[in-house]
Amino acid sequence: MKKKRVYTFGNGQAEGRADMKNLLGGKGANLAEMNLIGVPVPPGFTITTEVCTEYNQLGKDYVVDVLKPEVEKAIKNIEKLMGAKFGDRENPCLVSVRSGARVSMPGMMDTVLNLGLNDDAVEGIAKKSGNERFAWDSYRRFVQMYGDVVLGMKPQSKEDIDPFEEIMEEMKQAKGVELDNELTVDDLKDLVKRFKSAVKKRTGNDFPESAWEQLWGAVCAVFDSWMNERAILYRKMNNFPEEWGTAVNVQAMVYGNMGKTSGTGVAFTRDAATGEDIFNGEYLIDAQGEDVVAGVRTPQEITLEGSRRWAKLQGVSEEERAAKYPSLEEALPECAKELIETQQKLEDYFKDMQDLEFTIQDGKLWLLQTRSGKRTGAAMIKIAIDMLHQGYIDEKTALKRCDPEKLDELLHPVFDKKALAAAKPVTNGLPASPGAAAGQVVFHADEAEEWAKEGKKVILCRIETSPEDLRGMATAQGILTARGGMTSHAAVVARGMGKCCVSAANGVVINYKERKMTINGKVFNEGDWISLNGTTGNVYEGKIQTQDAELGPDFLELMKIADKYTRMNVRTNADTPRDAKVARNFGATGIGLCRTEHMFFEEDKIIPMREMILAKNEEGRRKALEKLLPLQKKDFKGIFEAMDGYPVTVRLLDPPLHEFVPHDEKGQMEMARVMDISYSDIHERVESLMESNPMLGLRGCRLGNLYPEITEMQTRAIIEAALELKREGIKAIPEIMVPLTGIVYEFQAQKEIIEKTIQQVFSENSDSIEYKIGTMIEIPRAALTAHKIAKEADFFSFGTNDLTQMTFGYSRDDVAKFLPLYIDKGILKQDPFAVLDQNGVGQLVSMAVQNGRAVKPSLKCGICGEHGGEPSSVKFCHRVGLNYVSCSPFRVPIARLAAAQAAIE
Amino acid sequence: MKKKRVYTFGNGQAEGRADMKNLLGGKGANLAEMNLIGVPVPPGFTITTEVCTEYNQLGKDYVVDVLKPEVEKAIKNIEKLMGAKFGDRENPCLVSVRSGARVSMPGMMDTVLNLGLNDDAVEGIAKKSGNERFAWDSYRRFVQMYGDVVLGMKPQSKEDIDPFEEIMEEMKQAKGVELDNELTVDDLKDLVKRFKSAVKKRTGNDFPESAWEQLWGAVCAVFDSWMNERAILYRKMNNFPEEWGTAVNVQAMVYGNMGKTSGTGVAFTRDAATGEDIFNGEYLIDAQGEDVVAGVRTPQEITLEGSRRWAKLQGVSEEERAAKYPSLEEALPECAKELIETQQKLEDYFKDMQDLEFTIQDGKLWLLQTRSGKRTGAAMIKIAIDMLHQGYIDEKTALKRCDPEKLDELLHPVFDKKALAAAKPVTNGLPASPGAAAGQVVFHADEAEEWAKEGKKVILCRIETSPEDLRGMATAQGILTARGGMTSHAAVVARGMGKCCVSAANGVVINYKERKMTINGKVFNEGDWISLNGTTGNVYEGKIQTQDAELGPDFLELMKIADKYTRMNVRTNADTPRDAKVARNFGATGIGLCRTEHMFFEEDKIIPMREMILAKNEEGRRKALEKLLPLQKKDFKGIFEAMDGYPVTVRLLDPPLHEFVPHDEKGQMEMARVMDISYSDIHERVESLMESNPMLGLRGCRLGNLYPEITEMQTRAIIEAALELKREGIKAIPEIMVPLTGIVYEFQAQKEIIEKTIQQVFSENSDSIEYKIGTMIEIPRAALTAHKIAKEADFFSFGTNDLTQMTFGYSRDDVAKFLPLYIDKGILKQDPFAVLDQNGVGQLVSMAVQNGRAVKPSLKCGICGEHGGEPSSVKFCHRVGLNYVSCSPFRVPIARLAAAQAAIE
Repeated sequence: MKKKRVYTFGNGQAEGRADMKNLLGGKGANLAEMNLIGVPVPPGFTITTEVCTEYNQLGKDYVVDVLKPEVEKAIKNIEKLMGAKFGDRENPCLVSVRSGARVSMPGMMDTVLNLGLNDDAVEGIAKKSGNERFAWDSYRRFVQMYGDVVLGMKPQSKEDIDPFEEIMEEMKQAKGVELDNELTVDDLKDLVKRFKSAVKKRTGNDFPESAWEQLWGAVCAVFDSWMNERAILYRKMNNFPEEWGTAVNVQAMVYGNMGKTSGTGVAFTRDAATGEDIFNGEYLIDAQGEDVVAGVRTPQEITLEGSRRWAKLQGVSEEERAAKYPSLEEALPECAKELIETQQKLEDYFKDMQDLEFTIQDGKLWLLQTRSGKRTGAAMIKIAIDMLHQGYIDEKTALKRCDPEKLDELLHPVFDKKALAAAKPVTNGLPASPGAAAGQVVFHADEAEEWAKEGKKVILCRIETSPEDLRGMATAQGILTARGGMTSHAAVVARGMGKCCVSAANGVVINYKERKMTINGKVFNEGDWISLNGTTGNVYEGKIQTQDAELGPDFLELMKIADKYTRMNVRTNADTPRDAKVARNFGATGIGLCRTEHMFFEEDKIIPMREMILAKNEEGRRKALEKLLPLQKKDFKGIFEAMDGYPVTVRLLDPPLHEFVPHDEKGQMEMARVMDISYSDIHERVESLMESNPMLGLRGCRLGNLYPEITEMQTRAIIEAALELKREGIKAIPEIMVPLTGIVYEFQAQKEIIEKTIQQVFSENSDSIEYKIGTMIEIPRAALTAHKIAKEADFFSFGTNDLTQMTFGYSRDDVAKFLPLYIDKGILKQDPFAVLDQNGVGQLVSMAVQNGRAVKPSLKCGICGEHGGEPSSVKFCHRVGLNYVSCSPFRVPIARLAAAQAAIE
Repeated sequence: MKKKRVYTFGNGQAEGRADMKNLLGGKGANLAEMNLIGVPVPPGFTITTEVCTEYNQLGKDYVVDVLKPEVEKAIKNIEKLMGAKFGDRENPCLVSVRSGARVSMPGMMDTVLNLGLNDDAVEGIAKKSGNERFAWDSYRRFVQMYGDVVLGMKPQSKEDIDPFEEIMEEMKQAKGVELDNELTVDDLKDLVKRFKSAVKKRTGNDFPESAWEQLWGAVCAVFDSWMNERAILYRKMNNFPEEWGTAVNVQAMVYGNMGKTSGTGVAFTRDAATGEDIFNGEYLIDAQGEDVVAGVRTPQEITLEGSRRWAKLQGVSEEERAAKYPSLEEALPECAKELIETQQKLEDYFKDMQDLEFTIQDGKLWLLQTRSGKRTGAAMIKIAIDMLHQGYIDEKTALKRCDPEKLDELLHPVFDKKALAAAKPVTNGLPASPGAAAGQVVFHADEAEEWAKEGKKVILCRIETSPEDLRGMATAQGILTARGGMTSHAAVVARGMGKCCVSAANGVVINYKERKMTINGKVFNEGDWISLNGTTGNVYEGKIQTQDAELGPDFLELMKIADKYTRMNVRTNADTPRDAKVARNFGATGIGLCRTEHMFFEEDKIIPMREMILAKNEEGRRKALEKLLPLQKKDFKGIFEAMDGYPVTVRLLDPPLHEFVPHDEKGQMEMARVMDISYSDIHERVESLMESNPMLGLRGCRLGNLYPEITEMQTRAIIEAALELKREGIKAIPEIMVPLTGIVYEFQAQKEIIEKTIQQVFSENSDSIEYKIGTMIEIPRAALTAHKIAKEADFFSFGTNDLTQMTFGYSRDDVAKFLPLYIDKGILKQDPFAVLDQNGVGQLVSMAVQNGRAVKPSLKCGICGEHGGEPSSVKFCHRVGLNYVSCSPFRVPIARLAAAQAAIE
């Protein structure tokens, strides 16, 4: 049998099928399939990928020769179906030419549109459309496109100038106009002439007038593009073999601007904002695609129902509507009927909400594009659950259809869409904690508190935040900082609180003394209104209305399905009973990280905490710790109670001590008075706590080893709290976690103290509870020596914030100086503090899990860094076999969904 | 044949041999061998290790029963050779009992001495020695030792009190004396009584009077000790099987205090201070071992020659000498002759300088101990080379005999021994850079310079040093700092300069304003004399005389031999032509790390450098860089010239920029004037350079990527310098090194700039040179992704200082707060900044070399961290296959020797 090189499609017929991607390329196979399911796509044909290989081996002449009979036959088929003639003067049939490999490949040939136009055909189009301007504009665009793509006139580097653009600029300057569409028909004719002589000048040849010559040129250009540098590099990077080759797709052009029975529009098979199962969309009669979105004419609704709803909203009377803005169902009922049938076919076929582009040419409907429609988070969930109920998809597919990251929209307030549309951002920063907030600018935490007490809404604006700002942050609507990355103090705390935060905003200069902030030159005084979008990082002047979050039954159903498939547990990072409760409501099944340091900033605790730190010796420290014990015990009781029956991982004191002590004279004087020692003694002690690189200094279990009495006190508080609750019938399951272990002996030393204290408290109470003692793995060395540490530890919790800091050598407080540049230059694909670096940091995690489990198969492993709530990182955690992820309360649903997806994948 | 369980030795006879370690244990086999080579050791016998297994399986009674005939025979042999009787009243023969496994095992049974003493035998000893006090003191010691070791009365934990010590204390209090030797004979008799009743009270049994009962008790105690907790743990840790068992060694006691024909002494087969091949030593007649070292009586020389030399030095006349301080050759010529013959036998046998202990009892010489003698660095080399020449040892053994670390003594000034002996340290710090120095205290770098110009010797005392102190450090004799670890700025720079430095000295408080320093309460004002020992970390008040270093021909010969066997190259870390020359003289074959930052602190460069940093935009930076270019080129020319023909690895700018800018108002005002912008602008820019954790901030190639023009300038300076030298016939081989790579794309971006600049300079000069472009591996992530980076880089240089910082999460500037505690507690065995942590950091190095070479087998790998000059780390580098190590100039010989040893091992 003769080898078949060309596969035609059109009018519900096709020689190819969806499963012939290897031969026809992805696009070609889909076009064939569209025809077979009855979707009216413009007719055309596909030249197979095998021809690409022949082209490379046997050359252009051979291929053109061997293709000719089949291509001519295929063109005839197009002509027949379109009622027009390729290269004709009166009734020309124009085509598009596109490449199409078996997978989508950026860096391949661009599309050539309107192929077949020449000095004759342009007149035919002008007549047929009754729009000379359109005809000549199409022509000059075609010459430019063909020149660039097929004749190689496209600039190869950014410094070079496109010769066509240059001519266009000259023309506009000469005519004194600014926009392309201000040029007259004669200008356009002149342009075509000049474009053509530029082609002649550059290539030595005349621009091809013959439609056939144009076609062969474009087909060969597609094959050539398979071997261009960018394509070769891309294949190399993705390990795609050269033998695959690319197919060529030739398809009839259709136009919506051919008179009153033509038109164009876009439509969604379901509501993209709400997810409701209502077909909807907009169109315009006698128009091109760009007219629908240009906003010059008012687009009309496709369905009558939609049209009436629109009129009601706009206050347009039914009479006016029917006369001036009829629905497609009214204007072109046959086309509308076919469109409605087609959209149903598409949804039945793709089993997902589709976003369609269509054109009606002379009363005939053509689908130009269909793809999965973009949708809001709410629509995403509703469509998935509806389609599940409607039997379109199964549970796993419903889960896979939902982007975990988009759940965020449902969990936080958002700006009112209309209000937002009118606003322009004054600057942009890191989207440190999602949600939307509007409030009056304040610069000091205590003022945030005071203003909030008066019922005012405030945005706390700081250069950066510190633990001393905690209560101010809690009462503010949102937080804006001039410095600090995605895991800066402000970002981490705000996410924990579910509070909107924009950090490291560009061009923000804050003057605390003058209570003034300038953003790129614009001045904001205390009390001025400002609005933040923590999801995008945008900052707006003034007050933008917000809408509250609301969780519906679809959301709950989705979460229930997720839990059915998931393997990993999802815990939360929570330091207060309030956060614990929020997380539990979101489905957290334990606390993976309860930081004890934030507790010490509350008013009743900060003074004895400072006494402890500033004490001269162990005796002094023990005295202060005695005061802290009952207070800390109370904290733990609250958290354990909120998590009744679930494990709570409590991390022992971690941060450098200088974070707790007062750095101002006033605060130091107060401590001198409280402790009855001299101010200069206090001052000296505070100074001695300063470190060059506190992140790499005296913190974590180094503290607990230097001052074992702190570990003792914290252990006692935990265990006593659990025992007291047991008497009340509440089950606390504490997991005591040693931070910053780097050496197994470091952990052992801490474990010894903890064990001894626990046994002592047990024997004092003649009672016991279950407990675990484990460690953070957040120092590279700990990951590298996990086989040793696993022998001693009941569990590992990967602190990927610190692990990322040390594996990259990035201080998260300073990284903002170069991270944006690195992401901009492509040196980093993502912020490694937001998305786990699987190659580097992930390698350490994976190594530690494997080596740890090799010596202790039962080793419980989890993650409690910020990555525990980031979907791609959660999936990584699943793959390396973690038992749980832990994230801030508002990320819990996201992590649950991602974990389920990972289990399905 | 009946199984032999007891092996006797004595009088040149022995049933065992050196190669019977498995059966007789290490000690037993050696005692046998000593006899066989004719060394007079006190006679005795060894019970085999097999008996230990029998003991554990069949029990005490069986073993005593089966051993009895052989042990009784062996005791008879001892009695015969010693002319005394075991358990006798008149002429008792006393013995020692010791354990002895096939390898030395701490945690096994202690020794029991003087076994055989009882209420009768003590009288015999008193009579025989004519020293009742000695007899009774020996007896009370024996009861205590036997009670502790055999009868289990030794306290098991530190909190418990030794019952014998308690009685002793009571006795001393009652008698109102402070020292043991103030007790009278009657007191001692009383003590024995009380000790015995304590035994009765605790064990329920009388203290055994029978020598035989004592002996069996001790033998069984040795076997029991094989199964005690400490021994089991030790075996487990070292993977020694239980079946090995321990042997028991029983040996006659000998005494040097038995009258005029008895004596005791110590001797060295060669001079331990100079290494000269002269037998030497000291002895005392009628004395015990402790008398020789106690300093009450003047010890006499063994040889006549030594004695005469001594007399001359002491100004003692020949008459007086011969009368009062005769040599052993004169006093007991037979014994002296035998001793001299014996020492020769020992050296012939061990082929190393021996340190002997001997006792003469009643005119009969006994060797009590022989071991390799401790020696000075100079002696170490001389002995190794002499013995090589004398044919004792081969070259490899000569190399192995030398401890690389001890070469240091030869390379730096040392304190005069006598002067040092009289001094007491006022404090101790880290031995940051070896050598000895004395000078007047100054607190500011510029004063150090001024004073030095006046010809004064100064010690620069700082809280910590910064690059601004460089010139002051260069002119000082030594540096003392209150803070900073082994790789702090002061330590690294001082080692580079070969200058003595003690860092993080305890209790040092410096008040710059008052020009005053207190060390543990003692006040030092500017100008006061102080002395530092950088080898030990000791700090002394006042001026201690120093002696200069001198390298002899033996040293050079040793180095030559080392180079013959070594596989790795040894390069140096040097930033100046001076350092490069020093290192080249010490045998460095290239520069492994030339830091460019120090160059910028010289007066002509710091101002344009600051202009560059403080510039508002690229244009400003380029202007300043143009000024720096010729200056930097000059620097490189100097260094390349000094290293003519050897490769020079130049590291591009690495430190955070704020290190270069002035932090004081005066300096900032000056910059404002120079740059003609406002002071507040300068101040703001300086502030904006501050970072929370500069070690993890904007530095290394992050700088070069943010400001590519810096990389361009440095590359240009390097290449232009090399090309200019080429015209002068000097061969520069630059290896351009990108610092702080963590991501392959980071390196690629820098490499692109470097390559482009190089090609530009080549084409401008129409000339070229060979060069390499590589990177530091000092970020954990770089090590983890080495397979990617190796594809791009010509070489890897492991920056183990930073790699240690990040792998451990330790800031080297802050680590002093907890490192001493960690070492003290045993959490860390060594300072990981001094000795490479092979488990953690080393794992990353090894991984990176393997993975890098997997994709590029020719990848050149070296180390340029401080560890490159530390012997155990150098050996590690050899094992993981590095091509070279690079260290500070004064460590080059040490690294060469260690590298050779590694190659031999």
